[in-house]
Amino acid sequence: RRKGAPEVIFGETKTTEQILAMAQGLLAGTGRAIISRMPAQSLEMVKEVFAQYEMRYQEASRMMVIYAPGYTRRSTGGRVGLISAGTSDIPVAEEAAMIAEEMGCKVTRIFDVGVAGLHRLIEPLRSLLEEDIDVILVVAGMDGALPSVIAGLSPVPVIGVPTSVGYGMGGKGVAALLSMLQTCAPGLAVVNIDNGVGAGITAGMIANRVAHTRGSRS
Amino acid sequence: RRKGAPEVIFGETKTTEQILAMAQGLLAGTGRAIISRMPAQSLEMVKEVFAQYEMRYQEASRMMVIYAPGYTRRSTGGRVGLISAGTSDIPVAEEAAMIAEEMGCKVTRIFDVGVAGLHRLIEPLRSLLEEDIDVILVVAGMDGALPSVIAGLSPVPVIGVPTSVGYGMGGKGVAALLSMLQTCAPGLAVVNIDNGVGAGITAGMIANRVAHTRGSRS
Amino acid sequence: RRKGAPEVIFGETKTTEQILAMAQGLLAGTGRAIISRMPAQSLEMVKEVFAQYEMRYQEASRMMVIYAPGYTRRSTGGRVGLISAGTSDIPVAEEAAMIAEEMGCKVTRIFDVGVAGLHRLIEPLRSLLEEDIDVILVVAGMDGALPSVIAGLSPVPVIGVPTSVGYGMGGKGVAALLSMLQTCAPGLAVVNIDNGVGAGITAGMIANRVAHTRGSRS
Amino acid sequence: RRKGAPEVIFGETKTTEQILAMAQGLLAGTGRAIISRMPAQSLEMVKEVFAQYEMRYQEASRMMVIYAPGYTRRSTGGRVGLISAGTSDIPVAEEAAMIAEEMGCKVTRIFDVGVAGLHRLIEPLRSLLEEDIDVILVVAGMDGALPSVIAGLSPVPVIGVPTSVGYGMGGKGVAALLSMLQTCAPGLAVVNIDNGVGAGITAGMIANRVAHTRGSRS
Amino acid sequence: RRKGAPEVIFGETKTTEQILAMAQGLLAGTGRAIISRMPAQSLEMVKEVFAQYEMRYQEASRMMVIYAPGYTRRSTGGRVGLISAGTSDIPVAEEAAMIAEEMGCKVTRIFDVGVAGLHRLIEPLRSLLEEDIDVILVVAGMDGALPSVIAGLSPVPVIGVPTSVGYGMGGKGVAALLSMLQTCAPGLAVVNIDNGVGAGITAGMIANRVAHTRGSRS
Amino acid sequence: RRKGAPEVIFGETKTTEQILAMAQGLLAGTGRAIISRMPAQSLEMVKEVFAQYEMRYQEASRMMVIYAPGYTRRSTGGRVGLISAGTSDIPVAEEAAMIAEEMGCKVTRIFDVGVAGLHRLIEPLRSLLEEDIDVILVVAGMDGALPSVIAGLSPVPVIGVPTSVGYGMGGKGVAALLSMLQTCAPGLAVVNIDNGVGAGITAGMIANRVAHTRGSRS
Amino acid sequence: RRKGAPEVIFGETKTTEQILAMAQGLLAGTGRAIISRMPAQSLEMVKEVFAQYEMRYQEASRMMVIYAPGYTRRSTGGRVGLISAGTSDIPVAEEAAMIAEEMGCKVTRIFDVGVAGLHRLIEPLRSLLEEDIDVILVVAGMDGALPSVIAGLSPVPVIGVPTSVGYGMGGKGVAALLSMLQTCAPGLAVVNIDNGVGAGITAGMIANRVAHTRGSRS
Amino acid sequence: RRKGAPEVIFGETKTTEQILAMAQGLLAGTGRAIISRMPAQSLEMVKEVFAQYEMRYQEASRMMVIYAPGYTRRSTGGRVGLISAGTSDIPVAEEAAMIAEEMGCKVTRIFDVGVAGLHRLIEPLRSLLEEDIDVILVVAGMDGALPSVIAGLSPVPVIGVPTSVGYGMGGKGVAALLSMLQTCAPGLAVVNIDNGVGAGITAGMIANRVAHTRGSRS
Ligand SMILES: Nc1ncnc2c1ncn2[C@@H]1O[C@H](COP(=O)(O)O)[C@@H](O)[C@H]1O
Ligand SMILES: Nc1ncnc2c1ncn2[C@@H]1O[C@H](COP(=O)(O)O)[C@@H](O)[C@H]1O
Ligand SMILES: Nc1ncnc2c1ncn2[C@@H]1O[C@H](COP(=O)(O)O)[C@@H](O)[C@H]1O
Ligand SMILES: Nc1ncnc2c1ncn2[C@@H]1O[C@H](COP(=O)(O)O)[C@@H](O)[C@H]1O
Ligand SMILES: [Mg+2]
Ligand SMILES: [Mg+2]
Ligand SMILES: [Mg+2]
Ligand SMILES: [Mg+2]
Ligand SMILES: [Mg+2]
Ligand SMILES: [Mg+2]
Ligand SMILES: [Mg+2]
Ligand SMILES: [Mg+2]
Repeated sequence: RRKGAPEVIFGETKTTEQILAMAQGLLAGTGRAIISRMPAQSLEMVKEVFAQYEMRYQEASRMMVIYAPGYTRRSTGGRVGLISAGTSDIPVAEEAAMIAEEMGCKVTRIFDVGVAGLHRLIEPLRSLLEEDIDVILVVAGMDGALPSVIAGLSPVPVIGVPTSVGYGMGGKGVAALLSMLQTCAPGLAVVNIDNGVGAGITAGMIANRVAHTRGSRS
Repeated sequence: RRKGAPEVIFGETKTTEQILAMAQGLLAGTGRAIISRMPAQSLEMVKEVFAQYEMRYQEASRMMVIYAPGYTRRSTGGRVGLISAGTSDIPVAEEAAMIAEEMGCKVTRIFDVGVAGLHRLIEPLRSLLEEDIDVILVVAGMDGALPSVIAGLSPVPVIGVPTSVGYGMGGKGVAALLSMLQTCAPGLAVVNIDNGVGAGITAGMIANRVAHTRGSRS
Repeated sequence: RRKGAPEVIFGETKTTEQILAMAQGLLAGTGRAIISRMPAQSLEMVKEVFAQYEMRYQEASRMMVIYAPGYTRRSTGGRVGLISAGTSDIPVAEEAAMIAEEMGCKVTRIFDVGVAGLHRLIEPLRSLLEEDIDVILVVAGMDGALPSVIAGLSPVPVIGVPTSVGYGMGGKGVAALLSMLQTCAPGLAVVNIDNGVGAGITAGMIANRVAHTRGSRS
Repeated sequence: RRKGAPEVIFGETKTTEQILAMAQGLLAGTGRAIISRMPAQSLEMVKEVFAQYEMRYQEASRMMVIYAPGYTRRSTGGRVGLISAGTSDIPVAEEAAMIAEEMGCKVTRIFDVGVAGLHRLIEPLRSLLEEDIDVILVVAGMDGALPSVIAGLSPVPVIGVPTSVGYGMGGKGVAALLSMLQTCAPGLAVVNIDNGVGAGITAGMIANRVAHTRGSRS
Repeated sequence: RRKGAPEVIFGETKTTEQILAMAQGLLAGTGRAIISRMPAQSLEMVKEVFAQYEMRYQEASRMMVIYAPGYTRRSTGGRVGLISAGTSDIPVAEEAAMIAEEMGCKVTRIFDVGVAGLHRLIEPLRSLLEEDIDVILVVAGMDGALPSVIAGLSPVPVIGVPTSVGYGMGGKGVAALLSMLQTCAPGLAVVNIDNGVGAGITAGMIANRVAHTRGSRS
Repeated sequence: RRKGAPEVIFGETKTTEQILAMAQGLLAGTGRAIISRMPAQSLEMVKEVFAQYEMRYQEASRMMVIYAPGYTRRSTGGRVGLISAGTSDIPVAEEAAMIAEEMGCKVTRIFDVGVAGLHRLIEPLRSLLEEDIDVILVVAGMDGALPSVIAGLSPVPVIGVPTSVGYGMGGKGVAALLSMLQTCAPGLAVVNIDNGVGAGITAGMIANRVAHTRGSRS
Repeated sequence: RRKGAPEVIFGETKTTEQILAMAQGLLAGTGRAIISRMPAQSLEMVKEVFAQYEMRYQEASRMMVIYAPGYTRRSTGGRVGLISAGTSDIPVAEEAAMIAEEMGCKVTRIFDVGVAGLHRLIEPLRSLLEEDIDVILVVAGMDGALPSVIAGLSPVPVIGVPTSVGYGMGGKGVAALLSMLQTCAPGLAVVNIDNGVGAGITAGMIANRVAHTRGSRS
Repeated sequence: RRKGAPEVIFGETKTTEQILAMAQGLLAGTGRAIISRMPAQSLEMVKEVFAQYEMRYQEASRMMVIYAPGYTRRSTGGRVGLISAGTSDIPVAEEAAMIAEEMGCKVTRIFDVGVAGLHRLIEPLRSLLEEDIDVILVVAGMDGALPSVIAGLSPVPVIGVPTSVGYGMGGKGVAALLSMLQTCAPGLAVVNIDNGVGAGITAGMIANRVAHTRGSRS
């Protein structure tokens, strides 16, 4: 039967004790614990407590996955494209990627292609579309123009992910989010600023639904 | 080859002359013209000019579709669920529905189930999910709580569509949009306030991608 | 004669000297001093100065109550229900609980029941309502949808308490507050973001007014 | 068994047909239909269709109550105080009053006592409190200072109702709402700008809960 | 000696009498009167009073220029490129064009090239740049992404002009303005929403300064 | 001849070197240097450099006045009333007081009289008005209701000074400022949040103008 | 004994009946009724009812003063300077002027001197200051820069009055108000956008206080 | 052939490794690396790694330029005027200056001339204009009035650069930016708050375009 989204522990507002307890619960129940925005002061303790477990830790996004012994991540065949505009958008992009990967999808990344240099975008996008990707995540801060450009050039659904990059009026992702909400291009939906987790889950759900059909076909 | 989104003429800021010219262009090119937010003062003229054509007109949303002789709308097999919270949300919901239907999807509607009466929601939602729907659109104004509730209960991707219903602080859809962006539930992406067209296109793209795979399976 | 609200010292913007002086004044006058948002740098000094007194200190909310020797907290028979959505909402919920308890009410807590998992909510809510509770406090951040859901299911007045949980647009409690102000459900009033003290006092006043009548009945 | 809030038809965003259908439904089911913000263009038709029924219509707030033959409004003994700051606040105040009265409460009104003339307020407030009122609604626009002043002088819960009176920055009720949310006085909760219906229901629920106990005492 | 900007009468907030008086003053002083945002109720009267004069009137932008007998508009040789995203942006674009033309510049227009169809943009932009243009005005509403794209592709200064096109959050030009302020592309400055006059003057000043040098060269 | 406002060095955004240089300049020119918002890291150095000079330093507001040898502050006879709502408002109130005193005015303080306890206000206000005060400064955060109440009870001009006290929506002085701008009471003008310096100068200018006339009378 | 501010009937949100009743009350009590923002639909009726009375009506601001027979406006000797930036600011400026005049002050007007042409300002301002004015009102919309410029050049207190002139971001007076609140110049306090009445009262109170001293001198 | 803008590494959101890698790339490619907003923790490492290279470092703005051996900065003959209002605006002003200088322009600075002391401005502005400057950058925080004043007095294009100086409502540059967007003066375009880099590039592009023509003339 088709599976939904994994539970993710939002670390930012939790104490180390709460994180440990919730992780233990998830490991016991599902064999895997995903923790986003791990607080700096909790990291060492969590690593220590689960030292015996296999782990995946992404520094930029402070996201961690812990696997119980014997856990095997299934591969669904879902295909997610992931495009990000600038170096500063990478942590949020990787947060989304990790979630989609934990949901069993294959994630193809194109990083560092802003609207200020559109020529660098055309070739990689073409090859991405040729891979017959199921959904594209576009991660961008500042002017937030990239998702509109991508959605205008692509026949698949696009999820825009604004990041809190940028200062002054409309900074911290506000202009990026608003610009995406106001898009002229068809087929673009959005999640909140810096919400890589939500973007990853939505993309994972779309891709897995296609993959499920695809898979059950053969 | 996989098809994307239909072009839609945004009527609100156009003169009757501009609407007629663009509609004629689309009819000649694709056999169909879709006009959203038809201005009151343009309606009669458009009806007159295209009197010989088959038409579909939805009063509440002021959306019109005109078909050239011989045009047949394909059926893709995509399945879209459409849930709306209150009577006042119906125009936006129908705007989305018409678009998804024009993209070849089957749209199953559940109207008038707000969070103030959750018991009325449970049964119809269960039967919707049993239809193995590909994506759910949830249209809601005021508190915008319904999409979060639905996304928490459903294993398929949900697109939230805030409507400009509500007065006072956070009125005109602002609270609804923000609440959806801040959702605690997994798998919810959003479009802008009252953007039924954008929601319909995104849902149509998701459902059609699944359907395409489904279809090519048999 | 019916009693109103206790005075509460708002610690956040005060020096240790100001807190000590005000606490001494209240202890002399009423036999009890309540201090909310105790600044980290004042805690030890306050504990030391009042080392001889009975004390109650809630770490998460940094709220302290100091009792003069011989002080007995009356029990009014007021009944307050307290529901909170997530782990991060507990400090504000406990702030409200302590106030209502200091006002003599019995507080029944239901924690960790968000809209993303409504099924977990139904049973505890039913038993809460069966206790013939006088008023319900609902504490929630992010989408702020829970108070609307509760108010739709309950025949007693509900006070919504938004918390500053959540990031991005509408974060820090803004979406939660706006969504509560825009509620579709009847019988929901709100206090400001993170204002556990104000919520506790309002709930305490409502419950005590009912209790006073109830009590004087027998 | 204790009763909750009456259903109210929000007329503003409905067509005449929708209003008539919903009113007929409520009359058949409960013997009474309450319509708020009746659209100007629906009024005559509604009056005509229900010409045989007893009616109550409040011009300033455009609120109407229609009673089926034989309907008798119960009297609960709930006591609601209603204070409003200026002439322009009266429509919202009356909207709240009508709801509380339909819920069976006795409403005692004090109108036209702004903070710009506090001396006019003291005497009426004293006599209101001597009536042993259960809850006070305070309706105010512009600076929204009155609810804070009242809450500071009263031992009963206060519900603040900001109105959309005032122009310039903070106008249309924004300053009033924010000032109430920021109150220094204990025991003040709020509803949204111009939400007389919500205020009336909350006050009615509080007063009726007290009254229920009071009543069952004798 | 180098000339600055022409005086423009802002019609919107003026009475017909004020407009007539100011126009007469300018005609007497400089031989030309430019009136922007002519109020509907003033148009006929102004046309009548100056019936003997040569006139230029742009309906979409409601801008009028009146020339005293014998007035000859100088040609400076300044070259302004003008690009607009959608049909609805044309009135603001034409307002800017008229001002730049009245300042003696040649304006080359590229209309209707949004980011949703970038391929339509590349060719006209190339030929514009080949004309060795001095400055480019880019007029866009909704997502406001076009000016960033243009500035990224062009070696000349770009002035972004947001228009009040778009609804929902960030609508009426807000997202467009913020996105332009947050641009990732170099060499983009902006004027306020719908400020075609200001944009035209700034572009005219830049182009004329270049042209002055160019001209005095030969 | 009538004197205006003293120059004040805004310390917050300056380096120690800049503060020292500007102070030396003012001491040489006028015999006095006033520094507001002295940065923590500059304080010791400034004290050391001017160790030989007479000084006045107010800790709460971080304001300092340095007098050159032989400087005598004139007394103008201007009379300023200064009322503040809570303990947390005192730094801003003292900032205003120091400025008005440096301008030669006598400042009469009434501290700690919020709208939550109006009875405590009436007596001190009466005696203040009996001193035939020229202008009243009212300093308040949170709900900002106090200036409206004072202006309603006083026949002299009132300057409202919102402070950045308060959290949640409308916090950091926003509700206070907006409520003052929306005042129902006559004769209230405002300065920006926390702008004690601006308030003190305005009050000093008003009082000194009256005093000048008063003085030249005798 | 010193007199405070006249009562002013705010017409905008009142019915004709309410206006007439309040005007009659004031005429009976004080011999004068001042009505601001007279609604268009009330004007004729008010003129008719008080046809026998002396009247003063200012069209641009829709302000009216009605004098009972035998009423004589006292002259206090207060001196108010009134500067406005553009033609569109005149209605608000005249509203302020009428109030100050009704309070007995002499008002000296300088109109149409914006910051875009500072040279036109210097001479009139010099002669205004030579009249030994008591206070200056500066009325400005759009950029709101004029009050800061005036306050920087004048030794008397300045009251800034932002007007709702201007479109786009910061339009309707928002930028003007914020710029005044952020002034770099000493001695500038503000009232809300378009609040000519509040500005006139504050200026009248300041000037009359000076004048009272001046007058009692001789 | 005419050259556009230099690439600038935005240091603020980058790691030391990312900065080093990008700088090395630019040095290899163009012979120069420009880094703005160098993070404090990266400075020493960057200095060390490029110890052999010629460098320019501006402390206030934390901007650095590194030159490869043999690199010579060309001089274009472009002339940029740079005016700033207060001491606190200097870092942003210098950021703009460095960019324009790196683009080959001559930058003439006028610092510390706010609207609070206009007389100090007139003389330096006159001499600036006599230098036949191509474009003026005006850097100002708080009220943001200076760019409007300058644009009103100058016949060349002006770029306004708001800075994040100022506290309270409209603080952190918001009032400054809005006031510039609402300018009454002709020929003023803006960049975002604190965007010295963007301002410098735009001014450099304008000046270089003029200079190119000027240069190719001789
Ligand atoms: N009601 C609507 N809301 C949002 N987008 C729309 C709407 N109607 C049309 N569109 C989109 O706007 C674009 C058409 O704009 P236009 O060229 O101005 O007709 C197309 O990309 C449509 O998909
Ligand atoms: N954490 C809190 N949030 C909101 N109000 C509070 C809080 N703590 C104390 N108060 C209220 O603030 C007032 C005390 O303020 P103060 O006199 O400054 O200590 C009392 O009316 C309290 O009820
Ligand atoms: N549509 C417009 N938008 C922005 N500024 C304008 C517009 N029309 C005229 N102006 C400017 O506004 C000023 C004229 O204002 P006024 O004196 O009210 O006619 C001049 O500086 C014009 O350049
Ligand atoms: N705390 C303060 N708040 C507001 N304005 C201030 C403050 N301190 C000094 N000022 C004003 O800011 C200007 C001095 O700015 P600066 O040249 O940066 O020292 C003078 O006009 C002062 O009156
Ligand atoms: Mg697409
Ligand atoms: Mg779900
Ligand atoms: Mg309920
Ligand atoms: Mg109270
Ligand atoms: Mg470019
Ligand atoms: Mg007063
Ligand atoms: Mg001054
Ligand atoms: Mg100029």
